[in-house]
Amino acid sequence: MKKITLTPGKFKGLKRLSDDTGRFRMLAIDQRGSLRRMLGKATNRKPEEITYEELATAKRLVIEYLSPYFSATLTDPQYGLPEGIKFLDRDAGLLLAAERSGTNPAGKDGKEKTTELLKGWSVEKIKRAGADAVKLLLYYRPDGSPEVKEFQENIVRKVGEEAKRLDLPFVLEPMSYPFKEDEPEKDSPEFAKKKPEIVLKTVEEFSKEEYGVDILKLEFPVDLKYVEDFSFGAFDKKEREAVFTMDDAYDFCEEISNRSRVPWVILSAGVDIEEFLINVEIASESGASGFLAGRAVWKEFTKFFPDESKMSLWLKTSGVENYFRLVEASDKALPYFEHPLFESYANIEIENGGENWYVEYEDFKGEKGEGKKEKEEY
Amino acid sequence: MKKITLTPGKFKGLKRLSDDTGRFRMLAIDQRGSLRRMLGKATNRKPEEITYEELATAKRLVIEYLSPYFSATLTDPQYGLPEGIKFLDRDAGLLLAAERSGTNPAGKDGKEKTTELLKGWSVEKIKRAGADAVKLLLYYRPDGSPEVKEFQENIVRKVGEEAKRLDLPFVLEPMSYPFKEDEPEKDSPEFAKKKPEIVLKTVEEFSKEEYGVDILKLEFPVDLKYVEDFSFGAFDKKEREAVFTMDDAYDFCEEISNRSRVPWVILSAGVDIEEFLINVEIASESGASGFLAGRAVWKEFTKFFPDESKMSLWLKTSGVENYFRLVEASDKALPYFEHPLFESYANIEIENGGENWYVEYEDFKGEKGEGKKEKEEY
Repeated sequence: MKKITLTPGKFKGLKRLSDDTGRFRMLAIDQRGSLRRMLGKATNRKPEEITYEELATAKRLVIEYLSPYFSATLTDPQYGLPEGIKFLDRDAGLLLAAERSGTNPAGKDGKEKTTELLKGWSVEKIKRAGADAVKLLLYYRPDGSPEVKEFQENIVRKVGEEAKRLDLPFVLEPMSYPFKEDEPEKDSPEFAKKKPEIVLKTVEEFSKEEYGVDILKLEFPVDLKYVEDFSFGAFDKKEREAVFTMDDAYDFCEEISNRSRVPWVILSAGVDIEEFLINVEIASESGASGFLAGRAVWKEFTKFFPDESKMSLWLKTSGVENYFRLVEASDKALPYFEHPLFESYANIEIENGGENWYVEYEDFKGEKGEGKKEKEEY
Repeated sequence: MKKITLTPGKFKGLKRLSDDTGRFRMLAIDQRGSLRRMLGKATNRKPEEITYEELATAKRLVIEYLSPYFSATLTDPQYGLPEGIKFLDRDAGLLLAAERSGTNPAGKDGKEKTTELLKGWSVEKIKRAGADAVKLLLYYRPDGSPEVKEFQENIVRKVGEEAKRLDLPFVLEPMSYPFKEDEPEKDSPEFAKKKPEIVLKTVEEFSKEEYGVDILKLEFPVDLKYVEDFSFGAFDKKEREAVFTMDDAYDFCEEISNRSRVPWVILSAGVDIEEFLINVEIASESGASGFLAGRAVWKEFTKFFPDESKMSLWLKTSGVENYFRLVEASDKALPYFEHPLFESYANIEIENGGENWYVEYEDFKGEKGEGKKEKEEY
C-alpha cells in the first residue's frame, strides 16, 4: 500500500482550499493593477485616479457575493483583506498573495521581468493572519536568460522554504510573457506556438521538490483563439491564424498532468467566461484538479462601477451563474487526493504520526520538543 | 457607532469556531485520563492497559462521526490529532489543547493543583499545525493560596501572550476543585454551595485584559443535583440536599454574563446528556454563546468498546441525536458578535485597517514592515 505523509498545516490547508469532493473551485480577487484599469475604464478616469476606497469596495463586493460559493478565495493584503475579511464566508478557504503587483524590468535589454515580494509583508504574516495558503505570482520564461531565471527561481525557493517552515500550503502561479525578437506580443501566432513548450518546461522546473510547491496554478497551454475551431473569431470576432487543433489542446494538458509532481489548477488570465469554460473543461478532462478563476468570473461587474447596488446585483446573478457553469465544466477534474502524488485520500498519513508526533513536530524555528515520555493520570 | 477592532487571525478563528449563526456549538474529544478510565471500565482492564492505538481509534471515531455536525472540534495532540485529522470534517474549526492531562499537587499540604503545559508541545506548534484556537484547561480556586494562584495565573498570562503573538484565539477553561477542610468532595452540599462564588470570582479574574482570553469555557455554576427540582435524584437516583432553586441557577448564569468581558460557553464536565441539556438551556437563556461539550455527548459509546462497528453505530445515531438536542437547547444562545464586547458583527473592523494595514500588521517577532509606499503598475 502506498503511504503518503503530510504535515497537519499543509493537510488542513489543502482540505480548506478544496471543496467536499476534493476539487479546487477557487476564486481570485487579488488583482490590483488590472482591476484599477478596469475601474478607470468604466468611469473614464486614469487608473491612478481610482482611490484606495474604491478598489477596496470593489473587492469586498466580490468577496461578499461570491466567497460563499467558491471553495476558497484568493485576495491581496493591500486592498482585499482589510475590508474583505468581514465579508469572507465562514467556510471559504483563504489564500493571500505574497508579491507586489507588477514586475521589474530585467535581463540584458530590460525586456525580461522579475518578481518582487510585497515590501512590509511576508509569508510569515500570511500564516499569522490565519490564511490557508500563500500564493506567489511569478513571471517566468524557462528559455529566458540564466541570471533572470536564477533570480526568479530563488524567490520561489525562498517562499517554498518559508511555507514549509510555517506548515502552510504554497500555490505557485508561473506566468509566461513575450520578450524575444520573434515575439511581437502575447496575442500573436508566434507566441501562441511557443506557449505549450513554455508551460511544460515551467511545470517541469517547479515540480522539483526543492521548490516546495503544493499546487501549481497554470495558464492554459494552448491559446484557444489560435485553435482551428475558434480562430475564425469565436470569442472576440477577430480572425486569427489556426496554429493548433483541439486535440493539441487536450494533448498538452495531459502532458502537464504527466509532468506535474503536484495537483494543478487552471487560471483565467483575463479571458472571457465562454473561453475560460472551455479551458476548464479540457484541463479537467486531462488531469487538472480544478480552477482558480479571477476576471473571467467577475470582470463584467466592473462595467457598473461606481454603482454599488448594480455591481452587487450583477455579482449575485451573473457572477453566481458563472460559478455554477464552472462547477459543471470541472466535473471531471481530478480530486487532489487522487493525483498520483497521493493516489487516494486513504493513503494520506500525518508525518511522524503516532505516540510521539507532537514532540517530533517542529516549531517555527525548526526545533522539536524534548522527547520525554509524558506522565499521565488516570 | 461603536467600533471594535480584531486582528485577522483572531477574527477568522472566531468565525471558524462558531457556526453560521455565530453560536459556538463545539465538540470536545481532548480527554485523555478520563477516556482511558472509561475504556478500561468497559473491558475490565486497568486504565494503563489501554493502548495508544485503542485511545487513538476511539478518538478518531468520535471525530469521524461527529465533527461534521459540530461547528468546531477540540482534540489533543497526543492521541487525537495524529489519527483524527484525516477524519476531521472540512468545515469543522479545530481547537488543540495546550496542557498535559492531569495536574501536579501544590500548596502547603499538597491538596491544591497546578497545571503543566504538555512538554514537547507549544502554542506555537498549535498555530503551525493549522489550528483555529488554543485551549487551556486550568485548575483554579480564586480563594486558593496566593502562591498557587499566582503560578496558575502566570500560565494563563503566558498562553495569552503567545496566542496574541501568534494571532490565534485563546479559549480558557478554568476548573474548580475541592481542597479545603470543609470540602469533602466535589459532589457534596458544602462544595455545591461554594461553587457559584468560585465560578464568578474566576470569571472576574480572567476577564482582565492582561490574560488575553478570547472565550471562557465555564462550568455550570450551580450543580443541578443540588437544586430542589432535581435533588430527589432526578439524574442518578441519588437523593441530595436542596441548596439552590432554579431561579438561583438563572441568576448565577446571568451574573457570569454580567462579569465576563468575553463570550462564554458552557462545558459538560462528565454529566449525563439530560442534565447537560438543562445546563445548556439555562446558560443560553442567560447570555452564554453556546457550548463546548465532551463526555455528555459521546460517553455512552465507550460502553461498546472495543467493538468498533457498534461504537460507530452509537455515534452515528445517538451521538448525532445529542448534537441536535444541544442545538435546540442552545437556540437562545447569544451569537458571539452580539456579546457586549462587539454588540454587532457590523461593528467589527480589522485592527489598523486601511491602506497601510499589511505594513503595520506584525510578524511573529512583533516586527512591522517598512512603511514604504509600494509602487504599482497599471
